[in-house]
This record gives sequence, structure tokens and C-alpha cells, in this order.
Amino acid sequence: MKQFLIGICTLLTMPVLPQQPVDYVNPIIGTDGMGHTFPGACTPFGLIQLSPDTDTIPHNINGVYQKNAYEYCAGYQYRDKTIVGFSHTHLSGTGHSDLGDILLMPATGELKLNPGQAEHPEEGYRSRFNHVTEKATPGYYEVMLDDYGIKAQLTATQRVGIHKYTFPESKDGHLILDLAHGIYNYEGKVLWANLRVENDTLLTGYRITNGWARTNYTYFAISFSQPISSYGYKDKAKVMYNGFWRRFKVEQNFPEITGRSIVAYFNFDTKQQPELVVKVGLSAVSTEGAVKNLRAEASGKSFEQLVKDASDAWNNELDHFEIEGTPDQKAMFYTSLYHTMINPSVYMDVDGSYRGLDHNIHKAKGFTNYTIFSLWDTYRAEHPFLNLIKPNRNADMMESMIKHKQQSVHGMLPVWSHMGNENWCMSGYHAVSVLADAITKGVFRDTDEALDAMVSTATTPYYEGVADYMKLGYVPLDKSGTAASTTLEYAYDDWTIYQTALNAGKKDVAETYRKRALNYRNIYDPSIGFARPRYTDGSFKKDFDVLQTHGEGFIEGNSWNFSFHVPHDVFGVIDLMGGDKSFVEKLDKLFTMHLPEKYYEHNEDITDECLVGGYVHGNEPSHHVPYLYAWTTQPWKTQYWLREILNKMYRNDIKGLGGNDDCGQMSAWYLFSVMGFYPVCPGTDQYVLGAPYLPYLKLKLPNGNTLEIKAPEVSDKNRYVQSLKLNGVDYNRMYITHEDILKGGTLEFKMGSAPNKRRGLTLEDKPYSLTNGIK
Amino acid sequence: MKQFLIGICTLLTMPVLPQQPVDYVNPIIGTDGMGHTFPGACTPFGLIQLSPDTDTIPHNINGVYQKNAYEYCAGYQYRDKTIVGFSHTHLSGTGHSDLGDILLMPATGELKLNPGQAEHPEEGYRSRFNHVTEKATPGYYEVMLDDYGIKAQLTATQRVGIHKYTFPESKDGHLILDLAHGIYNYEGKVLWANLRVENDTLLTGYRITNGWARTNYTYFAISFSQPISSYGYKDKAKVMYNGFWRRFKVEQNFPEITGRSIVAYFNFDTKQQPELVVKVGLSAVSTEGAVKNLRAEASGKSFEQLVKDASDAWNNELDHFEIEGTPDQKAMFYTSLYHTMINPSVYMDVDGSYRGLDHNIHKAKGFTNYTIFSLWDTYRAEHPFLNLIKPNRNADMMESMIKHKQQSVHGMLPVWSHMGNENWCMSGYHAVSVLADAITKGVFRDTDEALDAMVSTATTPYYEGVADYMKLGYVPLDKSGTAASTTLEYAYDDWTIYQTALNAGKKDVAETYRKRALNYRNIYDPSIGFARPRYTDGSFKKDFDVLQTHGEGFIEGNSWNFSFHVPHDVFGVIDLMGGDKSFVEKLDKLFTMHLPEKYYEHNEDITDECLVGGYVHGNEPSHHVPYLYAWTTQPWKTQYWLREILNKMYRNDIKGLGGNDDCGQMSAWYLFSVMGFYPVCPGTDQYVLGAPYLPYLKLKLPNGNTLEIKAPEVSDKNRYVQSLKLNGVDYNRMYITHEDILKGGTLEFKMGSAPNKRRGLTLEDKPYSLTNGIK
Repeated sequence: MKQFLIGICTLLTMPVLPQQPVDYVNPIIGTDGMGHTFPGACTPFGLIQLSPDTDTIPHNINGVYQKNAYEYCAGYQYRDKTIVGFSHTHLSGTGHSDLGDILLMPATGELKLNPGQAEHPEEGYRSRFNHVTEKATPGYYEVMLDDYGIKAQLTATQRVGIHKYTFPESKDGHLILDLAHGIYNYEGKVLWANLRVENDTLLTGYRITNGWARTNYTYFAISFSQPISSYGYKDKAKVMYNGFWRRFKVEQNFPEITGRSIVAYFNFDTKQQPELVVKVGLSAVSTEGAVKNLRAEASGKSFEQLVKDASDAWNNELDHFEIEGTPDQKAMFYTSLYHTMINPSVYMDVDGSYRGLDHNIHKAKGFTNYTIFSLWDTYRAEHPFLNLIKPNRNADMMESMIKHKQQSVHGMLPVWSHMGNENWCMSGYHAVSVLADAITKGVFRDTDEALDAMVSTATTPYYEGVADYMKLGYVPLDKSGTAASTTLEYAYDDWTIYQTALNAGKKDVAETYRKRALNYRNIYDPSIGFARPRYTDGSFKKDFDVLQTHGEGFIEGNSWNFSFHVPHDVFGVIDLMGGDKSFVEKLDKLFTMHLPEKYYEHNEDITDECLVGGYVHGNEPSHHVPYLYAWTTQPWKTQYWLREILNKMYRNDIKGLGGNDDCGQMSAWYLFSVMGFYPVCPGTDQYVLGAPYLPYLKLKLPNGNTLEIKAPEVSDKNRYVQSLKLNGVDYNRMYITHEDILKGGTLEFKMGSAPNKRRGLTLEDKPYSLTNGIK
Repeated sequence: MKQFLIGICTLLTMPVLPQQPVDYVNPIIGTDGMGHTFPGACTPFGLIQLSPDTDTIPHNINGVYQKNAYEYCAGYQYRDKTIVGFSHTHLSGTGHSDLGDILLMPATGELKLNPGQAEHPEEGYRSRFNHVTEKATPGYYEVMLDDYGIKAQLTATQRVGIHKYTFPESKDGHLILDLAHGIYNYEGKVLWANLRVENDTLLTGYRITNGWARTNYTYFAISFSQPISSYGYKDKAKVMYNGFWRRFKVEQNFPEITGRSIVAYFNFDTKQQPELVVKVGLSAVSTEGAVKNLRAEASGKSFEQLVKDASDAWNNELDHFEIEGTPDQKAMFYTSLYHTMINPSVYMDVDGSYRGLDHNIHKAKGFTNYTIFSLWDTYRAEHPFLNLIKPNRNADMMESMIKHKQQSVHGMLPVWSHMGNENWCMSGYHAVSVLADAITKGVFRDTDEALDAMVSTATTPYYEGVADYMKLGYVPLDKSGTAASTTLEYAYDDWTIYQTALNAGKKDVAETYRKRALNYRNIYDPSIGFARPRYTDGSFKKDFDVLQTHGEGFIEGNSWNFSFHVPHDVFGVIDLMGGDKSFVEKLDKLFTMHLPEKYYEHNEDITDECLVGGYVHGNEPSHHVPYLYAWTTQPWKTQYWLREILNKMYRNDIKGLGGNDDCGQMSAWYLFSVMGFYPVCPGTDQYVLGAPYLPYLKLKLPNGNTLEIKAPEVSDKNRYVQSLKLNGVDYNRMYITHEDILKGGTLEFKMGSAPNKRRGLTLEDKPYSLTNGIK
């Protein structure tokens, strides 16, 4: 897929500066299959992700769940032959779909007001395209729409999507604005849409949708570089409205368009002027806000200037590394970095107004409000990664989560939130981990407010099994279908509250949550040495299969993977599993077993492509597992398996991601693992050491310091760490601290083809564990 | 219906003050049949009209228009035997239905979450009731819900509805909150509803509806005087939502409820505490606004105090008159006065925030924002009446209309607007008349801004036939089904722009609109002496029937009535009709003819009950017609017909209104005509004289002056004016000016049983006419 590695500079015939980070980013990675990334234009952490939608299968057709809808989480599958249009909001790599708001599509010839089907594109406004004409770089996307001969170019600012369409000569151009289009589209997703033609170059409007974001308000302001010659619309829902229909001709050139299923069109005299630049400002607050955003960020600037601004913004944000590696490795590295900076996304107007979880309009005072918190995924590595390289942004994300809690009728921090909504996806209350990690690392300082929010969240009795969990010490299977994994997740989350309470000097709170952090022990069955769900009466589930993903009390994982999910007390779980030898054997078997498909056939997130043995990298619960050897007598095995995973799961290819990127979590795992360390237990200040993937990497820290990571001999063969020096001094511990990294300096790895089995074996070499395993 | 004339004071066992205006008001007048008034509790010009809904027939059942839905414009028909519940917003006397927002209903026993049918009330939560238990006075309503033995009492502030429910002893009480209920309810009216249980005594939420108000946002905050013991809901629409349903029990005691068709219930321990006071704050801005409104207006006050406050507010606003008359006459007079002060209604939060026509949130600076402008009706007498007794409120209403224009994508003043929406009902652009009248009378002073808005409105080419009207001098029948009446209405409206342009010193604008004001002449057919629609080619409609209401080019009226609609140039129309003799003959015949039902059977607003001959009082187009004799040689005939109309159309009875009250227009006609004068041509400073209806009336003017109107001999027999003295001086003119009235003093009518046919015959006695009739 190297065809896409064309820098923005060559596109715009600017001086070639080959060393810029954007030149290495390949947004096409992961756009086929299960990566769920999108190829379109965005800026770092921006509200806008302006990208082509190749299809959007409704989730539900006549009450029947459509499994292939899952492929279209980001609206794009590389293998598709047609583009429906360009919409302005896309989730990056999620495992559930939504958004795809405000779709525009240019066209010529006969006016068509439906998208048509991929098999018969001529029946709708969609167009065939060829990947040869497609260019994707950070902040820029380009493609030829073959059915119309229209060249489409896209760029973005934080809150504005900008389209440049070049029509063929002597053609009357149309622009379709499909307010019925969406990702996760089902009959009735659009609750209401409203559109005003303010004048012949400005539209305003909004729509309210009931998608995965239960009530999502998207306001827009759209400006055109040339006047509309005529316009009109079709309301596919034909909403009853007793007003003007009897006296006015409202379907053509009537400047107020409203309904549930509106497709509008605008005609332009593209014979006179073949180029049409369209600027689309979004806001969650109001059309007034959308106009403000449009004016503040995009007015008075040429398309080309805006492309350069977007590229510069990316170069600026991506400039944290210097690396040595093959072109593919560099593409993978910078693309991963790019993918860590799309979600969470800014969710407020230029004046600081934003729509809160209570649907009221708030002003963000002293912080930037963010949304899209895929916390079940991102607590693991994405947020720790932001703590390392974007602490100010992460601090604002923490403030955004605190505000979410204050606006929540439940008094809860986000579980999985986007666009001012709690979608309750997945399990746990991992916001507490994210806050604890930011507090431990000095990134977020309002410890008292955070602890209050954490305790309030962790004691909401009706949230999945919490009342029982507090009473029994575990979530019982008769109350929750994911009782066992939820118990494991709560126990770790509780440990992060314990840690924060210690930081806040609240000993009584700390003690409560220290005890809760040990609750994982309540669901280990000593007879099998694995976690196993229990009922309220204390009995374990009968007919239990430790390999089965579906229906055994675990969410998106089997017991074999999930039993290792005790990142805060690895010694404790080693003990429960029968000691070091047994624990290592189970780890070894996890990575080497053959897992027949029958064990994961009901799970969209687990495919053969994301397996290493029975270890599932494409889904998150096991992400820390390769590092668990660090606590054992065979830490070198981490080094072996990491390189296997890095090679298999991360490739500069359309299918290059071994699973959903999940808002940067997969990418952050990659970046940490390439550097040679990983935050196994967020909330501690420790990163567990693996092995560097590249011979040289310089990390430019936000405090101005730099950390050089050198491993000159490293290769697939030389994957084993022989020795390590930190700033010239031998370093034998199996972890490095956040503080050490912030100081900067040099980490020098001596690599070799055989493991050094003597490193990291003493107790003081071992990373943090709440207990020594002895109950 | 005198049973309802029970003062609020006796209800609350306070000292009896029999002379208070509220004691005379009977809100039950017009609640049966076509009056479309409601009996419930409100404050003067308040946002809240908290009233029982006895039924709400959907407008549309399976695509079939339901004619009887029209009866339920205000949600109440006196003849009904059951009450569905108490909702918070009601239009007063309109000819189209909407609102009925946020319905509450208390209940005991088996929980029912559907309203049930009137024929089988036991199948739903509705209850039977008996009018004997019903009490209605300004700001207070009371009824027993017989099926439950619950006493319901209602009162209101401007933005808060307050309910007091007294449950029977030893019963568990429920409160139903039906967010699917509405007036003008059709499948899908509710676009979205949201409800949060903030704590055990506070709810917040909102709903967005697509009714007659196309996009209506109603936010609420509901407080309870005792804690909720448990709660839950049913979603009749079963909205797809992939989030928490799989893990949480959300239908009971889960504090976040959202959907398209939500019926929620709240249980209370009414065994312990049988009284439940519920306070419901509304806002069009946000739940934050609703909470603010609730706190500012109703917190910390007992139900009884709030009842007294509402009564005091009414007494204060109604205190403009002292009259002599029978109890029925007093009831009719004060109830009419009451009905002029319900709509327009305040439409902003206590902090001045309001939702504009552009759906954005605006701040009202220096004025109170109002909504509900039924302008086709109210330009005639309601707004002129407010200019006389509530000039400050009317000035703010004018400012609200100017703001509407500024927020309109059409750049138009309101046509028929409510709740931040233009519903485009009826014809003309009569806001210009209302503004012109307020400017002429010194009530509204921003003449330049007003003139700009008026011209912008009158030149919107796509608004019903305006482009053709400007080109041809009339609206052609091939472009509009109401071409003839619309031409007449535009011509008068244009005269008001002419008048305003003169006031502004804009001679060129004045001249343009002076010419347009004569356009009425273009549709008079000299061969028949009546107005008659024309086609674009200039030809008149063939097979034309001057008596037929339906399909002849007039809106809600026939040519015989509508041909008199040239209030600004009565001499002109006299000339077109063949001179004085012919004109008087046509007027005489109008009032004396028999109009067979076939001529109005398609019109809901015309019934036998609202006819005097062929004159239709129940609908507005002819309201000025009885006064037109003033321009003729037989002005005394006005005096005869007025008393006929006053006696027939206005009675202290459930069927006491001879047609929809139309937001106070019918009532304002009554009040002017009782005083003895009427604003035939709003925009002039003249009121055309009729004859007083009562022997004595004192008008207390807002400037502190008083005008006494004396007619000691007046009776049905002595209905003719013999002579008139203004402040002791003989007064022979057929009109009195606004300036004369504001000065105060005495109008002394000498009445007799035979007309004085010599009065008011000279040209200088005649009221204003743009021309002397000679073309």
C-alpha cells in the first residue's frame, strides 16, 4: 500500500521537506476489514473527521440485525468500489458504529436524491472510484469520482470540514446534502433535521439523531465559494405538516427545509466556474456556534492554505520522535502516532460553549472540553501515552470527564461516552483508572474532586452489578452475563481508587478500596486455576469452558485470557494460579495453543487474524498479558512474544491492523511496545520493560527533555535483551518509572539472538504488585 | 352556568371582597363547542396554561383527517365525562390546535400507562368527573377525579404550573407523566422526549414535538412536595438503543428515561402524606432554564400562597374598568377582558433567554419576548385593544415581532407564529397592521426598524402570490386558491405600510404603498358589484357565486362578506359597489339574508350559531362590517346590528361564544363594541362610533386618566344614539380619536328607541378613507 505514501507537499507543489512526520503517515492502514480506521481529513483531536463513506449498512433491517454493518464503523471499506459521499464525523477504529453526520456529494447530470446500491451505483448519487486516484495524508484526502469526472479534495480544521470539487468543463454541477445519511443508520435514526438557506452562499441547519449516541445534536453552517443557482429537496419521510404546503411551493427554492428524512440539492453554474469550495462548520451547541466556528477557523483562507495549515498542525503535534527503521516501520510508527491523536476529540465551540451530558449548554472555563471516551479500551495505553507526550491535553480530558460526572444524573464518570452522551458500552468504570494514572503522573492535580467522582462512580448501586459486588465481593452470574470479567475489571478499577485515596491522604477510603481491589480473588476457582463466574449463592458456574468466549461470564474474551486481568496484583494471581511454574505454563500455552473457531465464532472482535495462539491481540483484555512474564522467573519470554505480535498485528497495509484500532488503544500499545516499555498497571508510575523494536528512537518529551532509546543490533533474530544501561549505568529492573523517563537521557539496550535468562529475577527487579501473592 | 361564578376568595375562606374583577370572570364561557377556550389556571400573558384535557383526538388516524379533532383545540369540551389529565400549555380560542405539553395525572390502584378511551375510562388512567365539583376562576381550577377520589387543584405563575393533589386516605398514590400526550397529536408528533430523575423530589427533562409549531422545544423541571418512593416508565415506541438494555434494568428506578413515546409513573407514600404538591417549571431554552424559572417563581411558596398570587396578578391586570350591568353582562365583560390577556404569551426565561425563530438562544435586552401571534385575527381588535390598555406589553410584543423578522430566514414578520415557529396559518401579512397601529398610537417608537421589516415582509416574492401581486396588482387565482381575499388583505396591509412610511417621512416608500393600497380595486367586478377573483390573464373567474364560502377565491368567507374588506378606503369601495344606496342595500341584505348551509358546509369556522343573516361573526373577516354604515347616509344602522350581535354572540354560557375566541380577538371586539367604538382601520388613530352596550362604564387608562362612558337609558329597546357629548360638548363625528380617549373625560350618550337619522351625515363627520371614492 505504499502507493499512498505521497506527502502533502508534492501534491501542492511546495518545497519537498522529506523529514516531516506527516510524510510517513499512511491513513489507509486499517481501512480494510477490522481496523475500522478512516482515510479522510482531520486535524489532531479535532471535532471534524471529513472522510468518504463507501457504504453504511443499517444495523437493523426490518428488525433483523445486520452483521456486516459492523464493518462500516468508520464508513469506509477499502475493497468497496463506490463512494456514497463525504461526511464530517467518524469514530476512529471503534468497535461500534455511529456518526457519519452531514454528508455532501457532488454530482453532474440527472439529479438523483438517493444514494443507490453499491451493485447499481448508477441508480443513485454515489459514484464509482479507483484507488489509483486516491490520496490520503494527515489533513488531506483526494479522489476522482469517476461517474461524474469530479475531482474531490478534502481538508479540515478543528471544527470545519473543507471540500474542493473541480467539475468537468461545461457541466451543470449539483451538490447533494443528505441529512438522512448516517453510520449506524436505521429507520428512524434521524429524529429531526432542519436546514435554512440563509443566502446564496450560506446554509445553516442541524440534525438530532438517536444513534449509538442516544441524543446527538449536530449543528452546521455551510458556505460556498460561488452562489447557488437553484436548490430544492425531497423529504423521504413525508412528515405531516399542516402549514404552508397548501399554499406554497416549498420543494424548490424555499429557504426553510425541515423533516425527518431530508435530501437537499444545490445547483451551481459550474460551466462558468468549475471549482466549488465548500466549508462546513460544525457545532454541538447551535447554528450560531457553527457559524462562529466556520468564521473563526476557515473564513478568508484558500483551500490550499487550509491544507497547509492542517499539515502543519499535524507536523507540530506528531513531532515527538526521531526513529530509524524501514519505510514500512516508519509508516507504521507515524501512522500509529497519528491514530493516537484523533479521539478523544474537541467538543466545544471556539467560544468555549459546549453541550453537556445534561443536554444543557455549558462554558468550558480554563480547559478544552473533549468527547469520545472509549475507556474500556483507552485506559490501558492510549491515555497513559497521552500522559507521556500530551499531558496538557490529557489534563483537559480529565477535566472533561469530571464535568461529565457533574452533569450525570447518575453522578458517574464516563463509561463509554461520545457527543455529550453516555452509551454505556462495555464494562467496568475505567475512567477511575485514567484519572488515577494522570494523578500519579502529576498530569491532573485536582485529586480531591477526582477521588469524589471516582467513589461516586464506584458506588452507583444499579450500575452493572455494583450493589451485589459491594455486598458479595463479586458480581454474580445470575445478575450479569459478564459477571466474571466485570468482577476482575472492578477489582482493578478499585485498586486505582485505593491509589488515588493514598495520594489524597484519605486512609479510610484507601482501605475500603484496597479490600475491594482484592475481590478478584473471589472468582478464582482453585480446582481449575482460572477465573470462573459464581452465582449469588456462591457456587461456581457448572459446565464451564475456559476457552469459550461466548456465554461463559466474560465480555469479549475467554477465561484463559481474562484470568490474567489482575494488573495491580500479578503476584496475587500467580499464587492463585498455582505459583510461578503453573503461571508461566498457562502463559506459554496461551500464546502457543490452537484456538478453534468455535470458541470465538460469536464475537465480531476476534478473528483468526488477531490471534497469536489463543492470545487475542485484536481485542483489548489481553494487551498487558505479554508483559506478565516480567513477574515470573522467565521474563525474557515477553521479548519473544512482543516481536511476534508487533510483526503480525501491525503492517503498513490496508489490512494492517489486527483488530479495531479502538480510538488509538491498539496504536498506543504499538508505540509503547516499540519503545520497549508498557504501562501494565496504569495508576502506578511504572512501565514494564519489553524490548525495543527499532534500532534507534528519540523521544522528545513535552518538558523539553529527550530520551534516546538505542538498540543497534535489534532484529527479528536479535530480539532478546542482553543488558540495559540507563544513562550509562547498568539497569536490571524489569520496569522504568515515569519520573525516570521525564528526566530524559539514554536507554541503551544490548540485543542478541538468545535470551539472557538471568536478568530481572530478584524481587527488587520486579514491577509493582499490591501483594506478594500470599493471602 | 352561574354555578361557576365562585370567587377564589370564598374557596380559600379569605375575607370576601366582592368588587374584585376576578370575581366576575367565568373561564367556563366558550368551553363547549366552538369557543375553544380552556377552563384551567393561568396568569396574565403567562407561558403556562395549566388545564384539564378531556380528550385530544388525533388530527390524523391512518392518514385520514379527523374532523372532530378541531373541537379539541384547547383540549377541553364541557360535554365530556372524563379528564385525561392536566397539561401545561393551551392555546386560547384558536382555530387550529397544538400544545397540551407535559401531562400529569394522579391515580390510585392498578397502574395504567395509557389514557384509555372516553367510552371505557376504566381501561386507562383517565378519570370520570362531574362539573358540580369543578371550580374555575382566574389562576385557579379545581375538580374531583371521581374514579380515584382524588381532589385536584391547579394554579400557575408565569412559567410554573402548580398542582395540589389530595389523595384518599390509605391509598398508594401514583402520578403519571405522559410525555406522549399532546393536542394535535398524531403518530410521530413527539420527536423525542428525555427525562431525568435528579433526586427523589426533582425531575428535569424536555420534549421536542413536530406539531402545528413545526419544531417545538419544551423543557421542564418538576418538583414534588414529598419524595418519590419508586418510579418507572414504558416506552410505547420501543426506540432502538443498543446501549444499556442488555445489562441494566432500566424500566424501573433508573433515573434516565428517553424515547419517542414515554409514559412515566412515580409512586408516593400517600398513606403517610395524602397531599402532593407538584410544581412544574417550563422553558423553551433548557432544563437549566426550567429549573431557574421554577425556583424564581414558585420555590418556597405554599400552594395557597401561589393561588393568591395568581388571583392578585389577575386583579391587578384586569383593573381597567368599572361597569354597571347585569351579573351576566359583568361575567361576559370581565371574562372577555380575561380572554384578551392570555395570548400572546411570555416566551422567555426569567433571565431573559429565549429560543428564537432560528432555534438559537437569544437574550431579550430591554423587552419581554412574547409568542403566539394569531395575527389574521388579532390585528383587527386584540392588538388595538392592548394599545389602549396595555401599551407597554404591546410595545414588547412589537419588539418580539421585529426580533422574529430578524431571525427569519425569509426576512418576514410573523404571519401566525407560536413557540418560536412560523406556522404560516391564514393569509396576508397583518403584522404590518399591528406595527402601524402601535406606531400611529405612539406605543411603538422604532419606526425605521419597523418600516424596514414591513417592506421586507411585503416584498417576499415567494410568499403567497406576492410576486404576481406586485406585478399584476392582484393575486391571480391560478396561483392561489384564496386569490381574491388575499388581494384585499394585502391592499389593506399595504395601506398600513403607506401610513408608517408617512410617519417615518419616507415619501417614496409611502407612494409605492399608497398605490399598492388601491390594488383592491383590481378585483372588483363592476358587472356584479362584488370582489371576484381574476386569473393571470386578467379574466374573472367564471361560474362565480358571491355567497359560496368554499372554492371561490376567498379564505374562510364568501365574496359578499369579504367585498367589504377595504377598511382603509371605505369611500372607495362604496364607489365600486355603485354608490351609497347600493352599498347600504348590500350591507342590509348581508345582515338580513338567509344563508343556506350549503354555502358554508365545508368551513369549520362558520356555523348557524355564528350567523346574523349572512354576516359571519364567528369568524373574523367581517368584524368591522357592522361599523361601515358610518360612511353612509344611514349610520344609525350600526347601532341596531351591534346590539343584535352582542346579544346573540356573547353569553355567559358554556356555548357563550359565537365562534373561536381566536386569542382574544372575539373578546376584544366585544369590549370595544360594549364601550361604543371600534378600530375599523387599525393604523389610523380613529375608533368608529357604535353605541354603548351598558349604562355606565369607566375606563381607567394606563396614563392615569379615566374615560367615563355614560348611556343611562340604554337597553335593547333604547339602542339608538340620539346625541353624544364629549366632556359636555356636542359631538357629531362618527369616530373618536385615540388622543381624545387618552385625555380622558366623559362620553355621554343620549339613547332612544328610534334612530336619530340626522347625526353624522356630513363629510367632516365621517371616519378616515384613503380616497373619496373618485378614481
